Amino acid sequence: MSLSEHYHTVRKKTETICSYLHTEDYIPQPVDFVSPPKWHLAHSTWFFETFLLTPYLPDYRVYNDDFGFLFNSYYNNVGKRVFRATRGNITRPSVAEVYSYRQYVDMHMDLLLQLKSGDATVHELIELGLQHEQQHQELLVTDIKYILGGNPIFPVYSEDINWEADQNKTSGFVTIPEGIYEIGHGGNGFSFDNEHGRHKVFLHEFTIANTLVTNAEYLEFINADGYSNFNYWLDEGWSWVTENKIDAPLYWYNVEGEWHNYTLAGLQKVDPDAIVTHISFYEAAAYAEWKHMRLPTEFEWETAAAQLDWGKRWEWTHSAYLPYPGFAKPDGALGEYNGKFMINKMVLRGASCATPKGHSRTTYRNFFHAAERWQFTGIRLVKL
Amino acid sequence: MSLSEHYHTVRKKTETICSYLHTEDYIPQPVDFVSPPKWHLAHSTWFFETFLLTPYLPDYRVYNDDFGFLFNSYYNNVGKRVFRATRGNITRPSVAEVYSYRQYVDMHMDLLLQLKSGDATVHELIELGLQHEQQHQELLVTDIKYILGGNPIFPVYSEDINWEADQNKTSGFVTIPEGIYEIGHGGNGFSFDNEHGRHKVFLHEFTIANTLVTNAEYLEFINADGYSNFNYWLDEGWSWVTENKIDAPLYWYNVEGEWHNYTLAGLQKVDPDAIVTHISFYEAAAYAEWKHMRLPTEFEWETAAAQLDWGKRWEWTHSAYLPYPGFAKPDGALGEYNGKFMINKMVLRGASCATPKGHSRTTYRNFFHAAERWQFTGIRLVKL
Amino acid sequence: MSLSEHYHTVRKKTETICSYLHTEDYIPQPVDFVSPPKWHLAHSTWFFETFLLTPYLPDYRVYNDDFGFLFNSYYNNVGKRVFRATRGNITRPSVAEVYSYRQYVDMHMDLLLQLKSGDATVHELIELGLQHEQQHQELLVTDIKYILGGNPIFPVYSEDINWEADQNKTSGFVTIPEGIYEIGHGGNGFSFDNEHGRHKVFLHEFTIANTLVTNAEYLEFINADGYSNFNYWLDEGWSWVTENKIDAPLYWYNVEGEWHNYTLAGLQKVDPDAIVTHISFYEAAAYAEWKHMRLPTEFEWETAAAQLDWGKRWEWTHSAYLPYPGFAKPDGALGEYNGKFMINKMVLRGASCATPKGHSRTTYRNFFHAAERWQFTGIRLVKL
Amino acid sequence: MSLSEHYHTVRKKTETICSYLHTEDYIPQPVDFVSPPKWHLAHSTWFFETFLLTPYLPDYRVYNDDFGFLFNSYYNNVGKRVFRATRGNITRPSVAEVYSYRQYVDMHMDLLLQLKSGDATVHELIELGLQHEQQHQELLVTDIKYILGGNPIFPVYSEDINWEADQNKTSGFVTIPEGIYEIGHGGNGFSFDNEHGRHKVFLHEFTIANTLVTNAEYLEFINADGYSNFNYWLDEGWSWVTENKIDAPLYWYNVEGEWHNYTLAGLQKVDPDAIVTHISFYEAAAYAEWKHMRLPTEFEWETAAAQLDWGKRWEWTHSAYLPYPGFAKPDGALGEYNGKFMINKMVLRGASCATPKGHSRTTYRNFFHAAERWQFTGIRLVKL
Repeated sequence: MSLSEHYHTVRKKTETICSYLHTEDYIPQPVDFVSPPKWHLAHSTWFFETFLLTPYLPDYRVYNDDFGFLFNSYYNNVGKRVFRATRGNITRPSVAEVYSYRQYVDMHMDLLLQLKSGDATVHELIELGLQHEQQHQELLVTDIKYILGGNPIFPVYSEDINWEADQNKTSGFVTIPEGIYEIGHGGNGFSFDNEHGRHKVFLHEFTIANTLVTNAEYLEFINADGYSNFNYWLDEGWSWVTENKIDAPLYWYNVEGEWHNYTLAGLQKVDPDAIVTHISFYEAAAYAEWKHMRLPTEFEWETAAAQLDWGKRWEWTHSAYLPYPGFAKPDGALGEYNGKFMINKMVLRGASCATPKGHSRTTYRNFFHAAERWQFTGIRLVKL
Repeated sequence: MSLSEHYHTVRKKTETICSYLHTEDYIPQPVDFVSPPKWHLAHSTWFFETFLLTPYLPDYRVYNDDFGFLFNSYYNNVGKRVFRATRGNITRPSVAEVYSYRQYVDMHMDLLLQLKSGDATVHELIELGLQHEQQHQELLVTDIKYILGGNPIFPVYSEDINWEADQNKTSGFVTIPEGIYEIGHGGNGFSFDNEHGRHKVFLHEFTIANTLVTNAEYLEFINADGYSNFNYWLDEGWSWVTENKIDAPLYWYNVEGEWHNYTLAGLQKVDPDAIVTHISFYEAAAYAEWKHMRLPTEFEWETAAAQLDWGKRWEWTHSAYLPYPGFAKPDGALGEYNGKFMINKMVLRGASCATPKGHSRTTYRNFFHAAERWQFTGIRLVKL
Repeated sequence: MSLSEHYHTVRKKTETICSYLHTEDYIPQPVDFVSPPKWHLAHSTWFFETFLLTPYLPDYRVYNDDFGFLFNSYYNNVGKRVFRATRGNITRPSVAEVYSYRQYVDMHMDLLLQLKSGDATVHELIELGLQHEQQHQELLVTDIKYILGGNPIFPVYSEDINWEADQNKTSGFVTIPEGIYEIGHGGNGFSFDNEHGRHKVFLHEFTIANTLVTNAEYLEFINADGYSNFNYWLDEGWSWVTENKIDAPLYWYNVEGEWHNYTLAGLQKVDPDAIVTHISFYEAAAYAEWKHMRLPTEFEWETAAAQLDWGKRWEWTHSAYLPYPGFAKPDGALGEYNGKFMINKMVLRGASCATPKGHSRTTYRNFFHAAERWQFTGIRLVKL
Repeated sequence: MSLSEHYHTVRKKTETICSYLHTEDYIPQPVDFVSPPKWHLAHSTWFFETFLLTPYLPDYRVYNDDFGFLFNSYYNNVGKRVFRATRGNITRPSVAEVYSYRQYVDMHMDLLLQLKSGDATVHELIELGLQHEQQHQELLVTDIKYILGGNPIFPVYSEDINWEADQNKTSGFVTIPEGIYEIGHGGNGFSFDNEHGRHKVFLHEFTIANTLVTNAEYLEFINADGYSNFNYWLDEGWSWVTENKIDAPLYWYNVEGEWHNYTLAGLQKVDPDAIVTHISFYEAAAYAEWKHMRLPTEFEWETAAAQLDWGKRWEWTHSAYLPYPGFAKPDGALGEYNGKFMINKMVLRGASCATPKGHSRTTYRNFFHAAERWQFTGIRLVKL
């Protein structure tokens, strides 16, 4: 696929995800870690405008000067950002105008692609912009689910999507022998700066499950009063459970004694054979403790990955999100992409049902706070 | 005007107010005291469905069972209410469906009006429902202003509305002699329960301004460092000023040394001759203190009203919102209309530019917390 | 009693109240509305030093320059105040040094009393300082009760004090006819500025109880599920009840099915015949609503007072704390004494078991927020 | 030294630390991460009573049943704990009685030591209790500093202690070659469970400073506007700086243009040659970023330690506090000692001026949240 085709395929995908929405659904920001769909549409476009069109396309005129202010995210180096918690109140520009903005930028990106067809820097930045948009596609899906899922009438996003029903295709465990292994991205294709710095680690032998924990297995933990026994929980996890009265994964509702969960296809009975999802790190760690097992480290996961069936759920590791040896952040705004978030977060490995095709690899490092669970997260265990 | 005509006139007015909106504007709830326009549209309709159609129209079928849950406000007696702070996340039903809901209810109200043309209770409840909708029309305007006004690009609601430019038409002071006066609603026409219980009060002589404080006058207070001298402020007012870094009325922005204010017609230079508005009680009281004057009590205001030019701004009084002698709240849900809010609020008298025609009278008691100022509030002074 | 004797009697009383304390008890500030006993001891002394000794005693040397900073309360006009919420962390100066400070100031006050024996301004200020100290004596007792009462081992303050056991000495109701009455302080003796401005009010006939509500009566409200029926509560009162899980007066604990209350003499079974106390305005108003009665206004209370048995509990009125007609605050720091608190508080009338002798009168206006209940508050009802 | 001598030496040390206090100083808890000195005295004693005397000394009678409730810390397995944030309000038992408690427990520990002189389990538990008490000795010093340091009159703890003046004794850098190294405690002597599980890691070559950053060096960062340039900061660090208006290390005050710091000997000018201390991880990481260097990992630190001059400041590493391979927490209350805190904290290595003698080793893992800085923390850099 040419870069131009790739560009339009990715850009189109964002709009396909939004095709199930009503105009109203594009607006809310129910909690600060969720962004309105309109914002995702505009922000991913702003990225191409700011880092490609403005510096590289001669005579390019910015679509609207206000948009840099409204649709920047966390790039302190590119002007004053909108306070994140208030994104949900920005009703203008309208959704229609944001789609016009996308069209305007896409048209100029076509010009740029022609003009700079041999410019490696431009190609790399376009690739980065597309990877960035794919990251937002996944967030778009999970943010939409959060927005609709907070409505007491449980609207259906699409009856044809049944990701929550994903099941394990394999079984058993894989044992990896002690040794020195290489970690991090070393090949050609695209990768993010937080994967760079391929380096050696020493791993002791470990035995890792080839399956993710299912709803049926997780229900055993619930039924064993796992949520009310502090011995299984990290101290801050226990505070999280008690202060928020957590007693099940996100989107689970006990309706007259029977567990249901909100899915993209609406409210449904919990399927015991499906892989459990919308699990926080705290819950994953408590489940592992109860099971007398543990979570893998990110290095163990990466080393075993080739032998595992993965890609349906983001999998919590027991590794904190920290820089690899030799990590150095690029200068300027793009230097803010990853490095500055490397604190107080845990690494997730793999990919989820919401991850765009071609956007996963064994070295990819995702990261969230230990309490966050609106992504399609899951649990893979390692023997003690 | 027949009751049926009156009904349709009022109902139409709500939709006219919304006619300037985009679909997106109907959704947000930027702060908990502001409700989304969609909610106002549905809630005022729900009122007629719940208190008129369901009990009085034979065989009436509720439009949608979920709506009672979604669009009730604070009537604890009519089922579980939606937590007020989350109204802004309810994207479904769509705006279009809420308009269908209005149409459905209006059609059935026509039937009811025919069927119960001679039923006094029904007529009274319809009148209450229309007064209720008119109260929401005023909130609708001020909530829309708040929603648009929080957008850094300051969208225009309508260029044809210039309420913020209202000026005083009169001048001077009115003196009312000492004596016993009657307070509260005593006539026929409609009034709310909080105005009932006409009763006597003794007033000492007082001299009240026939004008409201203007922007020019208020600017003198600002320029005299009124916002940084605690001596003018109530203790909790001073905390409010310092914690929120308040230094001007709501919607005022100092752009390169010149004061602007956000109006329904967009961002404009402050007009010195216009009447100041979006003032909290704390600011009104501090201004009066600085001016060596005071605010009127609600009884003084009501007694003097016939001689005053009023109706452009809600006017803060120095009276707390408390029950009149003999106040007794009705049984059931309608008993929750007013009485339960009678604590920690100050009374405002008069009416504002956003008050629907026919919805004001000298006995009307409006009430807000001392810090609230998103209504079109103003200041009238009394001599010490 | 000479002014000098009066001075020493009042000052001695403060120390008598503290004589039951351990050094440790002088230190904590468990919540921001409670002050440490050490602070009360020092602050009441600082008042005499600042408003009497410094301006009127020639060559007076301030005991310690830091004390103005540490022991000022809310007088913005007399230098920067200590942030109120952190008073409990100020362990130095020691308690012993604060007593030395008191001694030093008392010694110099003796000199001043001799020197200015005929100076009316000085006499008035001394009287104000003593009234101020008496106000703090009452707070001292209730703050001590709060500090000790928050300790799960319920320490005894003094086994000889049984104020919580106070009972009604009278019965029945008193009816006051409609008419114009005079309100506010008009005589000679001392009074605070908030009582000044004697003025006329018109009262409709009312019938007021000669007794305060007892524990037995209040228990009926509890047992009738009064705390779980929102119909009895003001809206903000209902939020207070639900958010704080309130189900009984302050200091009440249900121990194995039996109600106990923490008293100055330790934890005891609730005495059904005693007058209920530690009641918030919200609870008083809800109780009245449940009882189909109401609370008196402060004007009704003052008018009826001569015929009532009062003085054991501060009695909540249904009046907001607002200025009387003609109220004007004095210039300077003493102007901050009362006026600036006149917002968002309700008036209490009477006096309590903790009020110093000679510190009560029928025109005295006490005031607290509707949720506060660590004072010895009570309920008196008026017939609807 | 016999175990009995060791026991009394450690126990005596705690009391020596407190010998500089007034009774008042034992009481406050100014923030939730600081405990009152009285609590430390009692809690370390409660540890011996609960884990040694009660299970192992025949016929032992608990000193006071309430103390388990009052002076437990975070051991959920040993009864209901006091809510941590309210420790500062527990004025009774008195300080004197807590000293009696210590004496009572020490006396019975003497009996136990005689009775169980050959019991290895008892010896191990005593050793754990002493290590526990030594951990609290360090906290005692830093909590005392925090309590006194929050007093605007800056009381002196002891004029003879000048730990803040500690200087580097060495200079230069140490380079450690690439290789496999052993990490964790493997020898005999005492160690905590979080150091266990000696295991191999692979380290790339690194070059680490033999000195800690000094005040003079840190002042360069301040003067280069390090606190106002977000490029140096982690995202959550930047929020911490801006929300808390941080512009210098804890206890630093700019007095008329000159930097002072509060020390145990009182307020003093910042000594440029002293080692900087009271630094959060956020500040350490920002300083390193500004300096184009980085912090060591805990494995690098442990590997280099034998060649470094350490022991004056706890040193932030760039490692999150997580379990070692094979970590398994013991059953019961002692299992709560370390494992449950392994989330959202960074590891510090070394020891500080406040660490008791004999309580440090190269495998010791200390841990705090990234924003905490009331310990004697410092910065050691590694070359990029």
